[in-house]
Amino acid sequence: MQADILIENGWILTMDPENTVFEKGSLAITGESISAIGRAEDLSHIRAREKVDAGGCIVLPGLVNVHTHASMTLFRGLADDLPLMRWLEDHIFPAEARLTPELVRLGAELACLEMMASGTTTFCDMYLFENSVAEAADAAGMRAVVGEVLYDFPSPCYGPIEKGFLHVEEMADRWKDHPRITIALKPHSPYLCAPELLCRAFDMAEAHNLPFVIHLAETAAETETIKKRYGRSPLAHLADLGVLSKRTLAAHCVKMDEADIALFATKGSAVAHNPQSNMKLASGIAPVPAFLKAGITVGLGTDGAASNNDLNILSEMRSAALLHKVNMEDPTVLDARTILRMATIDGAKCLGLDGITGSLERGKQADVILMDTGKPHMTPLHNPFSQVVYAAGRNDIRDIFVAGKGIYRNRCHTTLDANDICHRVREAVAGFHKKV
Amino acid sequence: MQADILIENGWILTMDPENTVFEKGSLAITGESISAIGRAEDLSHIRAREKVDAGGCIVLPGLVNVHTHASMTLFRGLADDLPLMRWLEDHIFPAEARLTPELVRLGAELACLEMMASGTTTFCDMYLFENSVAEAADAAGMRAVVGEVLYDFPSPCYGPIEKGFLHVEEMADRWKDHPRITIALKPHSPYLCAPELLCRAFDMAEAHNLPFVIHLAETAAETETIKKRYGRSPLAHLADLGVLSKRTLAAHCVKMDEADIALFATKGSAVAHNPQSNMKLASGIAPVPAFLKAGITVGLGTDGAASNNDLNILSEMRSAALLHKVNMEDPTVLDARTILRMATIDGAKCLGLDGITGSLERGKQADVILMDTGKPHMTPLHNPFSQVVYAAGRNDIRDIFVAGKGIYRNRCHTTLDANDICHRVREAVAGFHKKV
Repeated sequence: MQADILIENGWILTMDPENTVFEKGSLAITGESISAIGRAEDLSHIRAREKVDAGGCIVLPGLVNVHTHASMTLFRGLADDLPLMRWLEDHIFPAEARLTPELVRLGAELACLEMMASGTTTFCDMYLFENSVAEAADAAGMRAVVGEVLYDFPSPCYGPIEKGFLHVEEMADRWKDHPRITIALKPHSPYLCAPELLCRAFDMAEAHNLPFVIHLAETAAETETIKKRYGRSPLAHLADLGVLSKRTLAAHCVKMDEADIALFATKGSAVAHNPQSNMKLASGIAPVPAFLKAGITVGLGTDGAASNNDLNILSEMRSAALLHKVNMEDPTVLDARTILRMATIDGAKCLGLDGITGSLERGKQADVILMDTGKPHMTPLHNPFSQVVYAAGRNDIRDIFVAGKGIYRNRCHTTLDANDICHRVREAVAGFHKKV
Repeated sequence: MQADILIENGWILTMDPENTVFEKGSLAITGESISAIGRAEDLSHIRAREKVDAGGCIVLPGLVNVHTHASMTLFRGLADDLPLMRWLEDHIFPAEARLTPELVRLGAELACLEMMASGTTTFCDMYLFENSVAEAADAAGMRAVVGEVLYDFPSPCYGPIEKGFLHVEEMADRWKDHPRITIALKPHSPYLCAPELLCRAFDMAEAHNLPFVIHLAETAAETETIKKRYGRSPLAHLADLGVLSKRTLAAHCVKMDEADIALFATKGSAVAHNPQSNMKLASGIAPVPAFLKAGITVGLGTDGAASNNDLNILSEMRSAALLHKVNMEDPTVLDARTILRMATIDGAKCLGLDGITGSLERGKQADVILMDTGKPHMTPLHNPFSQVVYAAGRNDIRDIFVAGKGIYRNRCHTTLDANDICHRVREAVAGFHKKV
């Protein structure tokens, strides 16, 4: 058998339905896909154009970041440790008023660099000027689900909401044949979107068979607002409008009670859990163990860099694992395997992409990361799941392939010029502090 | 003026009492000490044997890890996600029964490598065979407060407790003139140490003017045990025995009520807060904002790598900042400056070392770290305090000086052989899993 790339002798965590592990395994890539995977000795007959020595590496599916606002990297550290409304109104909104398609593109490229360097191959983004984010993801060689944010008031991108729907139609048309970019419908939230907007967006998602992504039940203030306005919880409000289905991904879901969780589970919708953002903004602790118990799919997100302040799914994995253990007073909650599934195959499932990415299986897209275990903090290696979740850091990521293409090799970016982008970002944001 | 080393043009966070910052600053080292610090333009007359370009770097005092069990790096990932007693009795205790002075030395060297590479210059250690840990810290060029753990049952190191006190006397004598190693009295905890042991250890600490370090109020089970045994809380029990003073550092302090906190504050004792260990073992959330409000000094610790699973104060800083915000439902709690003080000058104060390390001030020991801000996840740089606490990772640490000596330069260790130590650790622990 002939392959393009053969990754040899790694400790492969496939994250397939059985969590199959090959302690000394190999993986062959042909074109965009995984053409073989198994024990190194069983794949030794495969010839390949390029052989990649994964000795001393853990080999994983690319990580999935199910919720971010990539271009907010421009605002990293602009304002921290503030009450939510002061943070938003005095700092974030004025900074966002300065955004242009070019700045959004630049911020998204910076985000792609950072996400790749910490092992993320797929991300789901909601923001303004999302064509620019799709372009950045395309240039980076990443996989992305992107959607222009929709809300009741005029947008700097498309103007009034009527034009917003036209804009989304155009985006969906422009990117419909792209192998790695998916357009989604992304109404902001039940508190910034009228019922008509939500229903129309959901209908459009159905018509085009696209994901429907929304912020939901992030804070106590939101829950109160929605209860006052509609007489029910944010979750019950969405259920009532008929916009919860298998295509719905709800970000945050911090304020959900037992009834909400039970109702949500019947809809087959998924949750984007953002532990660090929810902690930093003091929004609360999403009832993730209860979601899992109810059979709800949960993926991990970073949210934007203004409330995090980085886009690193490795550290979100650890935060999620630790936060829910202490919150439930139970050290067995969210074990390392469960957490790693959330960051890989379950994340892919949240985005409707589990047929093509999120696990290492024959026939799937070759979205693969190699994690070096040679550094002192990764030594010794008793358990690869524990090591990934509880010890690894971004610099342990050595190589990344997306759709069979090496987009990060030996800790260097091959698709984007990191120094140039960082330099241009510094120039672009100089004075943000003074002028906002 | 002539100096040995001049670190030029960095963004210096001095962590002095006024949190003085020099946006373009320089720092001169003469011998072991800081001989000048200030604006680059004011120090441009200084000639130096070596100039270090800190352009694009944040310059900080070396980080202080106030509570660890360094050699437990050998057990990293050996057992996770288990109930506390199963974890201890089925995995940790059997593994510890295999320890020798040589293994403890090796594990401590691994820990030193890891701590240095994440910016720690000073650590406080409690374990078996602590002479080996002191030797490792000495070889690494780090600053350390080390103490043999004392408890009621026989120790693999010294045998019965009577010999334990002799052993500590010998250690104190052996290391008394060392410029970077301090010996401390380290009874394990109120539940493993009888009142006589605690009082005698405290008297010895007083007689030799040494720190007194103890685990305290880590779990609800401990609190119950002590209340049953002595009729009062662990904290009140120690206060009653007279072993709380300015020389006392208590690790964990998770289960402390208002009365405990008020009493503790009157004693001038300090707290070693270990957020990730407390989260991972589901022990609980220490009332750190209340400690600070009461005027109690709080430092940050990693605890051992078996319950963490790395020794990275950068990530403890972020965990502490995020955990208490969400726990208090207040995003203004433990802001970045406060957190960075806990990891530097307040950590030094916990160990009685604030006169010599923990801040960058003229006359203090030159314990200095340079953090590179060039990577995408550190770009742009709006606020250096936020960047250090909320975005930085271990690989951003570029250079480390302790007592004026470069122990980590351009991300390479200069004192220990990382590859050799990692290799020997892998050999030493091979089969730990099968045999324990």
